Amino acid sequence: MLTDLPLDQLRTYRSAQTRPDDFTAFWDETLADAARHDLDVRATEVETGLTTLTTFDVSFRGFGGEEIRAWLRVPAGASGPLPTVVQYIGYGGGRGHVLENLVWASAGFAHLVMDTRGQGAKWAVGDTADSGPAGPSVPGVMTRGIADPATYYYRRLYTDAVRAVDAARALPQVDADRIAVLGASQGGGLALAVAGLRDDLAAAVAYVPFLCDFPRSTRITDDHPYREIADYLATHRDQVERVHHTLSYFDGVTLAALATAPALISVALMDPVCPPSSVFGAANAYAGPCEVLTWDYNGHEGGGPFDDARALEFLRENVDR
Amino acid sequence: MLTDLPLDQLRTYRSAQTRPDDFTAFWDETLADAARHDLDVRATEVETGLTTLTTFDVSFRGFGGEEIRAWLRVPAGASGPLPTVVQYIGYGGGRGHVLENLVWASAGFAHLVMDTRGQGAKWAVGDTADSGPAGPSVPGVMTRGIADPATYYYRRLYTDAVRAVDAARALPQVDADRIAVLGASQGGGLALAVAGLRDDLAAAVAYVPFLCDFPRSTRITDDHPYREIADYLATHRDQVERVHHTLSYFDGVTLAALATAPALISVALMDPVCPPSSVFGAANAYAGPCEVLTWDYNGHEGGGPFDDARALEFLRENVDR
Amino acid sequence: MLTDLPLDQLRTYRSAQTRPDDFTAFWDETLADAARHDLDVRATEVETGLTTLTTFDVSFRGFGGEEIRAWLRVPAGASGPLPTVVQYIGYGGGRGHVLENLVWASAGFAHLVMDTRGQGAKWAVGDTADSGPAGPSVPGVMTRGIADPATYYYRRLYTDAVRAVDAARALPQVDADRIAVLGASQGGGLALAVAGLRDDLAAAVAYVPFLCDFPRSTRITDDHPYREIADYLATHRDQVERVHHTLSYFDGVTLAALATAPALISVALMDPVCPPSSVFGAANAYAGPCEVLTWDYNGHEGGGPFDDARALEFLRENVDR
Amino acid sequence: MLTDLPLDQLRTYRSAQTRPDDFTAFWDETLADAARHDLDVRATEVETGLTTLTTFDVSFRGFGGEEIRAWLRVPAGASGPLPTVVQYIGYGGGRGHVLENLVWASAGFAHLVMDTRGQGAKWAVGDTADSGPAGPSVPGVMTRGIADPATYYYRRLYTDAVRAVDAARALPQVDADRIAVLGASQGGGLALAVAGLRDDLAAAVAYVPFLCDFPRSTRITDDHPYREIADYLATHRDQVERVHHTLSYFDGVTLAALATAPALISVALMDPVCPPSSVFGAANAYAGPCEVLTWDYNGHEGGGPFDDARALEFLRENVDR
Amino acid sequence: MLTDLPLDQLRTYRSAQTRPDDFTAFWDETLADAARHDLDVRATEVETGLTTLTTFDVSFRGFGGEEIRAWLRVPAGASGPLPTVVQYIGYGGGRGHVLENLVWASAGFAHLVMDTRGQGAKWAVGDTADSGPAGPSVPGVMTRGIADPATYYYRRLYTDAVRAVDAARALPQVDADRIAVLGASQGGGLALAVAGLRDDLAAAVAYVPFLCDFPRSTRITDDHPYREIADYLATHRDQVERVHHTLSYFDGVTLAALATAPALISVALMDPVCPPSSVFGAANAYAGPCEVLTWDYNGHEGGGPFDDARALEFLRENVDR
Amino acid sequence: MLTDLPLDQLRTYRSAQTRPDDFTAFWDETLADAARHDLDVRATEVETGLTTLTTFDVSFRGFGGEEIRAWLRVPAGASGPLPTVVQYIGYGGGRGHVLENLVWASAGFAHLVMDTRGQGAKWAVGDTADSGPAGPSVPGVMTRGIADPATYYYRRLYTDAVRAVDAARALPQVDADRIAVLGASQGGGLALAVAGLRDDLAAAVAYVPFLCDFPRSTRITDDHPYREIADYLATHRDQVERVHHTLSYFDGVTLAALATAPALISVALMDPVCPPSSVFGAANAYAGPCEVLTWDYNGHEGGGPFDDARALEFLRENVDR
Repeated sequence: MLTDLPLDQLRTYRSAQTRPDDFTAFWDETLADAARHDLDVRATEVETGLTTLTTFDVSFRGFGGEEIRAWLRVPAGASGPLPTVVQYIGYGGGRGHVLENLVWASAGFAHLVMDTRGQGAKWAVGDTADSGPAGPSVPGVMTRGIADPATYYYRRLYTDAVRAVDAARALPQVDADRIAVLGASQGGGLALAVAGLRDDLAAAVAYVPFLCDFPRSTRITDDHPYREIADYLATHRDQVERVHHTLSYFDGVTLAALATAPALISVALMDPVCPPSSVFGAANAYAGPCEVLTWDYNGHEGGGPFDDARALEFLRENVDR
Repeated sequence: MLTDLPLDQLRTYRSAQTRPDDFTAFWDETLADAARHDLDVRATEVETGLTTLTTFDVSFRGFGGEEIRAWLRVPAGASGPLPTVVQYIGYGGGRGHVLENLVWASAGFAHLVMDTRGQGAKWAVGDTADSGPAGPSVPGVMTRGIADPATYYYRRLYTDAVRAVDAARALPQVDADRIAVLGASQGGGLALAVAGLRDDLAAAVAYVPFLCDFPRSTRITDDHPYREIADYLATHRDQVERVHHTLSYFDGVTLAALATAPALISVALMDPVCPPSSVFGAANAYAGPCEVLTWDYNGHEGGGPFDDARALEFLRENVDR
Repeated sequence: MLTDLPLDQLRTYRSAQTRPDDFTAFWDETLADAARHDLDVRATEVETGLTTLTTFDVSFRGFGGEEIRAWLRVPAGASGPLPTVVQYIGYGGGRGHVLENLVWASAGFAHLVMDTRGQGAKWAVGDTADSGPAGPSVPGVMTRGIADPATYYYRRLYTDAVRAVDAARALPQVDADRIAVLGASQGGGLALAVAGLRDDLAAAVAYVPFLCDFPRSTRITDDHPYREIADYLATHRDQVERVHHTLSYFDGVTLAALATAPALISVALMDPVCPPSSVFGAANAYAGPCEVLTWDYNGHEGGGPFDDARALEFLRENVDR
Repeated sequence: MLTDLPLDQLRTYRSAQTRPDDFTAFWDETLADAARHDLDVRATEVETGLTTLTTFDVSFRGFGGEEIRAWLRVPAGASGPLPTVVQYIGYGGGRGHVLENLVWASAGFAHLVMDTRGQGAKWAVGDTADSGPAGPSVPGVMTRGIADPATYYYRRLYTDAVRAVDAARALPQVDADRIAVLGASQGGGLALAVAGLRDDLAAAVAYVPFLCDFPRSTRITDDHPYREIADYLATHRDQVERVHHTLSYFDGVTLAALATAPALISVALMDPVCPPSSVFGAANAYAGPCEVLTWDYNGHEGGGPFDDARALEFLRENVDR
Repeated sequence: MLTDLPLDQLRTYRSAQTRPDDFTAFWDETLADAARHDLDVRATEVETGLTTLTTFDVSFRGFGGEEIRAWLRVPAGASGPLPTVVQYIGYGGGRGHVLENLVWASAGFAHLVMDTRGQGAKWAVGDTADSGPAGPSVPGVMTRGIADPATYYYRRLYTDAVRAVDAARALPQVDADRIAVLGASQGGGLALAVAGLRDDLAAAVAYVPFLCDFPRSTRITDDHPYREIADYLATHRDQVERVHHTLSYFDGVTLAALATAPALISVALMDPVCPPSSVFGAANAYAGPCEVLTWDYNGHEGGGPFDDARALEFLRENVDR
Repeated sequence: MLTDLPLDQLRTYRSAQTRPDDFTAFWDETLADAARHDLDVRATEVETGLTTLTTFDVSFRGFGGEEIRAWLRVPAGASGPLPTVVQYIGYGGGRGHVLENLVWASAGFAHLVMDTRGQGAKWAVGDTADSGPAGPSVPGVMTRGIADPATYYYRRLYTDAVRAVDAARALPQVDADRIAVLGASQGGGLALAVAGLRDDLAAAVAYVPFLCDFPRSTRITDDHPYREIADYLATHRDQVERVHHTLSYFDGVTLAALATAPALISVALMDPVCPPSSVFGAANAYAGPCEVLTWDYNGHEGGGPFDDARALEFLRENVDR
């Protein structure tokens, strides 16, 4: 059943989330700090048993100079720099198995799928550690280091995601002028964040994005992972304001308002995980051109392959020109 | 947690399921009836946006001459007959979206994925109708026509599956001597059934197969789809013997005992849907060489891409010689 | 807890469901087609062990000339045509066991309870098959043939229900001028439908009717059976408009607007299965006199025997004159 | 799925429950105490709208002389004393609505259905209070007064049940030599208890009886109502022995061993509420002739109308001679 | 997630509950009747193993002169009358184990914790019986005797609670002029009730109070214990008005409107058990000064030790002057 | 219901878990490494509002020299070194609020309750961070760093726990010769571990201990937190052996076999979280005297205050001599 406002209200919904005063400084310093570490991009071809695609095990240095893993897939025998999709992964998963996630390279793109630090053990395997500081936390990463923006887990992950595009640009298979970011759920939130923090993208695609409008989302759904934050505040009852201050540096609504690359955002009206109003809150704040793809009867699975099909067209129009 | 016997007992477990006297006659007549309908294989290339693969919308005539849909995927530009994987789909799903399920063709096989009559509306879309007779039924297809082997839904679906191999053999992209059948769950049960009903296969691969040892499986799990049969018998209390007589013509244990193509069967020890003893019951009865791939901590998802990776090796050894 | 609007709003609620242009033609043709088949009513007395009632196993020809079963119960030794209740059954059930459902005949009515094609295996046994066409479907009958009004399951079932009244009129125990239709949930939806499609009824009784205001009901409840339609559209994402077009021919709101026999409709304000607004949507559209019986603290069980008690009075006033 | 031992083991299963030394004295004194109160049977005809049956609102004095309500239903116009069914009701329910439960009178029996003190508010309405002492209790009646056999709720209810037969014998519609007791679940447990505490019954019928083998049943099921006892002992951790001593005076296994009237007991092998071994424990201890009716695929609903159908035959053979 | 209105609306929310005309007379007579029984306060020191506190097993005579148990805890070696906390317990629990609930005495208060008649078997042990009349009831005490205010369970419990303060005043360790009542959930409802029925209290503390605004609360939550009332009315469909008439004598909203002692009330905005609007309904009706402590992300656990910490300060200000 | 073997089998149950060859070396080196960091014990009195107890906010340096927080509670005005309880906390919780957990100091002990690194956000607040390495993990700490014993989370936590005793010994309120370790669930597992890794304890108390017999426990329960390991291995299917190798260094069964201080271990026979056989596996392997306290009808709450009451006696006998 519908999990949020009716569609006609969603179309014009504006989030009440606000931007902290030092938001820009925070991210400028964060990315500048990261930039002090050499990217150190490495790519080693791996044997997968696939014959139409070539796969590389990639690593680069993300936040704090830590090693971040990725897969790069390209059509076998591709020559010359390719239009490229940099993909981020949903909550709990990692870059996955080499035999999964073949669509983008099979469609002729260079496809770099970034691993997610410290996740990668629930539905898709990963190989990347997170060694940042972790205060008292609810199981999961949503509250890891949440007492301060500087120690928050997503500061590290957003920085990795920004630098994944730098890593892509450093790969010979990638055409640096034709890069799109893409992801679903947490991956969609990361795509919006990167679109807000970089100005050199050709497009951004976010399916049912997570990490948007924390003050509202943590109050209108009981589902994980937003629920982790509610659970934390149910115990640390004296930190409500502090936690929301931290989260305000990482809100997809705020980041979308800085993003100018053409965007495709999908939303599912029966999504109990990422409330439709939080997605529309980001989409309606998006600074650049933004198409919203609405699924009437879907939950958090969103459009699935129907999202991919529309995204393929959208990428042809905006990236593979 | 473990859902069945400990592994050491499973390794030697023998099912108590028995074969009805007229089993062979039943299937001989069923397949002979079907053979009276022209196969009428048609294949039309479809536009998918993928560049490394070519996809065809295929149809052929299955049980009762009804139109059965399928996808054929081959590497773009492939020449000459290819080693081939004929795939069957799990319960509730259909042949899926054109952008899904790219592994086998990306590995160089011709990949024919058969739609499932009357299913295809739960987790993967389908386009094939089932118009056979349907008496009082529990929601789902498990009890459709179950009062008699002649009217049972799986008589029609097993026949479709047998004829999908004939359809594959009729396609120019397929090397008729190098065909494997493959599937997961219901798809795995179908692969075992086809392996028992045909003698021209190069290999059979069944991940966590369903449709095995009905008398035991319907009593030791509460999960769907076996549960549909239990629900039916909870209402039609006077049909216990009759229903099990019908099911005895369709039991993977019995069909495996007739199958001689080299087989790979996976089993998950925490599977609540397809009890491990039912899978070992089939594997231990399998007439040909049979490798069992055991996953200690998995449920019905089985080995997922790890199953695929081992299957790729197995297919290279047995099909792609 | 309350599952819908507060009662004061419900009392004046108007559904937004609309009638397709060819609605009347569709049903005229459908019923005319059915009328081409001989009714072929048969009634055989059965031994039940009951001494105050006489029971007959009845069959007649419904949609497509298929055999539809029913029970006829009358007071033992009844002479002359009786006031009559034609009853339809809730989702999943069939006409039931001969020892069930004794109220109406014990109250002096001839009681014809129609079996439900293809159902009758969940909570009450049935004996009637559905052999109509069935495209890809979610388990259950709600999406069987839903791609087109002509193939939709409920076209067949509504037609059976209309013809059950013809069958009743053909029985010597029935007074053709004193027939009421009655049912709960799906049975209530059928009663409303028959009341809208026939003009010769003495009364209609619908307890917590199902099958009303599909566009709204499929969006405001997660419960089955409306959920089957939502599940179908979650997979067949491109058929939302098409499916709702099909459903518009079968909506209880639309059919109620054509019904003129005196009606008793019950509604439960905590019903999660048939949302109160969907019931009031039908009741408030009902063309004839319509009494609404409201249960404040009930779910889909509605008034149970309290509904029966009020219905007995209502039938005495309107049918057993 | 099966909830207990396999059927072949159940057939010979013997419960380990034991009888306290003063068991006979306890019940002799209890019933003698009750007998000091005048039965004071009253029966007033009530208007129900039914024409084939006549219904009376009955009351008599049960344990402590408290008023116990019942319905008496007989075929309309019945003359002379009838074979009689005294029925007890399942946990949580009362004697129900006048329009419910019509089978036994419709089959020609006088049917006295006893209300259950203090219950009658969950699935069937009741009108009888329990005013006995109640120490700290888990919600429900299973632990009301459980600290001592003298104060235990079931001492009162079992006594009511024994006296309901006396009340039946005092009614002119009842043939005192042809009385059977019957019930399902708690009602079945009461039927077994009365069969063990009286020697003048023509038959006893217990469907899926509750209240059997408390030491085992409270340990092998998590379902209510046995669970109430486990919940009580989870808090009152120091009363395990004391509570089981109280329960030993009320165990269906012990009472069955004293019962000699011909019995029909049904059992469902997938019953999570009343474990099959507890039912077989009683049946295998039954002193008189005892037929066990086994349902392979049913839960606590047991045989439902199939139980009734077999019971009707059994009652014809044993009561309605 | 939020379970009720947004906070800004809650702050000014007024309940629609009304006071019956004879409300004052009802309680005057009830308390006068109780006062006819001698209080008979007894206190026996018990060995607990604790060295900083001294504990007494206390009893007094409550409603109907029945024995009500309690614990009295005081700092070891305390001399002279102490400021005092009289505590009531949440639904299902009793006065608990001697090693539990040490905060108030450890903070220097005399702490009298009253047992709850007939409860004390779910999460905290109790030793007090309820022997009042009990008509048909849903498991639990919410509907015990609900057909009439005179027989309702909470008439007895509220009276016990009022007299617990009298009992406290009779103890030498207690300073009769410095008594606060305190409790959580049911205990909070009792604290509000006693504050409304006595005029000699120094303060009242109610955490997430239960028993407020029955007409609304029984309709907007599915959770127990309010649900017990809804379940009763789902069966006893004809008693809706009668039951709400009974409840109107016991509503925390009404009782709060009579209470003048300074109050501290906590509320949790994600509480599914005691809806926030029902708590604000009482707090906004409170006649005396009333501080509301709001927890944004908590369910029915409320503020837990954070509530205690604020209550300690509040009691220092208002009681321990 | 019982969640494991019957009690008579449990009493003699021996776990099959084995000790890795370098077990002793591993722990010797780990503790020696930790010992290189100064303990740096600090204790600051905090204002709590309690008058019978004095509370200190304590910190010391644990694994890697990281700051570990604790509360120290002593009877107000206590003079001279006291017998001492060092307590560890259950999974998800931290040292808690200052107003919680007052039993041990109220009984005259010095009570040091150690915070749990990185936990302390689910049911009891904490203030201690874990900054050790964390590879891909399932939400929670069970699989943090599990790929290697050197990086495993519990290496850090066990070391903290061992050093908490050193910290206690450094406090003036503590009598170094009279220290017991105590905890429930994870806290009980830690108590067993410390008892196995130190030889200077007066006693060890473990209620329903967790962290015992990982190979068995991860296979026979679906409940968290053992489930985290199963979930990890369901994704990282190739690490079963590796993970169990890591876990073998941390198994309570192995550590108990090294422990000689008198022990009290409680077990609950209906515990779904810590299977009774895993607890008996540790108890039956315990090297010193060991009393097992068995609760027949409890789940993971175990004996609750009844455990405390017996532990108080046990500590009087063994610690407070």
